[in-house]
Amino acid sequence: MTNPIIDQLTQHRSIRNFQNKPLTNEQVAVLVDAAQHASTSTFSQQYSIISVTDPEILKEIGRISGHHWLMNAGHYFVMVADQHRNLRIAKAHDSDPFILHSMDKFLASVFDTAIATENIMVAAESMGLGGTIMGSILNDSQKMIELLNLPELTFPLLGIALGYPADEPELKPRLPKEAVHFRNQYGSDENFDQQLASYDALVAAYYKHRSSNDRTETFSHHIVSELAAGHGRRAELVDVIRKQGFMLH
Amino acid sequence: MTNPIIDQLTQHRSIRNFQNKPLTNEQVAVLVDAAQHASTSTFSQQYSIISVTDPEILKEIGRISGHHWLMNAGHYFVMVADQHRNLRIAKAHDSDPFILHSMDKFLASVFDTAIATENIMVAAESMGLGGTIMGSILNDSQKMIELLNLPELTFPLLGIALGYPADEPELKPRLPKEAVHFRNQYGSDENFDQQLASYDALVAAYYKHRSSNDRTETFSHHIVSELAAGHGRRAELVDVIRKQGFMLH
Repeated sequence: MTNPIIDQLTQHRSIRNFQNKPLTNEQVAVLVDAAQHASTSTFSQQYSIISVTDPEILKEIGRISGHHWLMNAGHYFVMVADQHRNLRIAKAHDSDPFILHSMDKFLASVFDTAIATENIMVAAESMGLGGTIMGSILNDSQKMIELLNLPELTFPLLGIALGYPADEPELKPRLPKEAVHFRNQYGSDENFDQQLASYDALVAAYYKHRSSNDRTETFSHHIVSELAAGHGRRAELVDVIRKQGFMLH
Repeated sequence: MTNPIIDQLTQHRSIRNFQNKPLTNEQVAVLVDAAQHASTSTFSQQYSIISVTDPEILKEIGRISGHHWLMNAGHYFVMVADQHRNLRIAKAHDSDPFILHSMDKFLASVFDTAIATENIMVAAESMGLGGTIMGSILNDSQKMIELLNLPELTFPLLGIALGYPADEPELKPRLPKEAVHFRNQYGSDENFDQQLASYDALVAAYYKHRSSNDRTETFSHHIVSELAAGHGRRAELVDVIRKQGFMLH
């Protein structure tokens, strides 16, 4: 029970090293087309896509995200949660935009944006490209808003660095299915400790054996170190999101 | 510049009519595997997947979402934003879970969940299946939490109804690229009215000519009617999300 698409999806790895070969405009257009044909909540198409090609802006995004290697990507997208377009339509029709400022519509634009993002990644990989989806642009979302001149009811959610892979990292093992996939009710926690222990061993082996950047770390260590890391400007996320007009009620 | 994966992505339509043929356990396992291999923020795997097979629960979800047809789907998933697993790990290591309750980690689990959701849809379509991603489970998120027995730091984000298609709806036209895809800065609004007018005409033609459920509606009408619809229990979303322990700071 497999096919080339399943094979591709289950072989996904993040690519951070790229050949020096930019994407063509035609490739970019195909990727945007794939994004636009993804499912969209209530058919409201609540996102925008910004291609960042200006080296000065890319440099700033490298600084914000801590991922300076994105300067070497063949193309860089910022995926923007967007109710601004629908706000314009509401205003043009003297319609009350109250609901656009709700938690509900913020959530809808976030999952619309993420779903479109994954379509870009899947389409890119089918073209022989690779890349990384970057939540790290949220390290300074206010600065991202200024860099990209984002208006009311838009928010920069994810970056996507794409290009021709210059290496092929090992496939990173995922949590055991039993710890993630349940039937009818959220899983009983009885066997979780055991599942986690075997997964921790698997992740430790992966880090030990991978060809580059080897280290000793289990999944549990990883989660704990994530929680101990400073939160920086991410602590301001609620404020920035609300300042953009989202999530007001 | 195309290939079978691009073709599939750009031919996506929501399927709501299914043949009477359930998915096999093997198919479900492949779909979960595809979801698990999607990109995940900081490798934290912040979602869970619940297969709903109990007809009583499905009936309730049909009532909540207003989409009773989901009873006829070949399989039904609920995709859950999940920091509960990582909370357990934090507790086991006496690590401060403060950050798990942040806006940042809520956002991360929402986009992780949405990205995994799209992988399930793409994988399903590659197997000859079709379906619909359903944000409408948010019509009563508190009831969904009770139905699925969802613990602290979990939230039911999206449903996915899948099955063998019993029809092939027309492809719904998307917004003009120029209204969605910008370069370096958020698009100037100068030509938006013109782009919208031509898109409104396109959507009106689509609704007029489609074989089933024809109506007269432009995209602008659609957005305005979305805003005028009652918000119901969705007005409680912030409260429910916070009650689950998310987005406390």
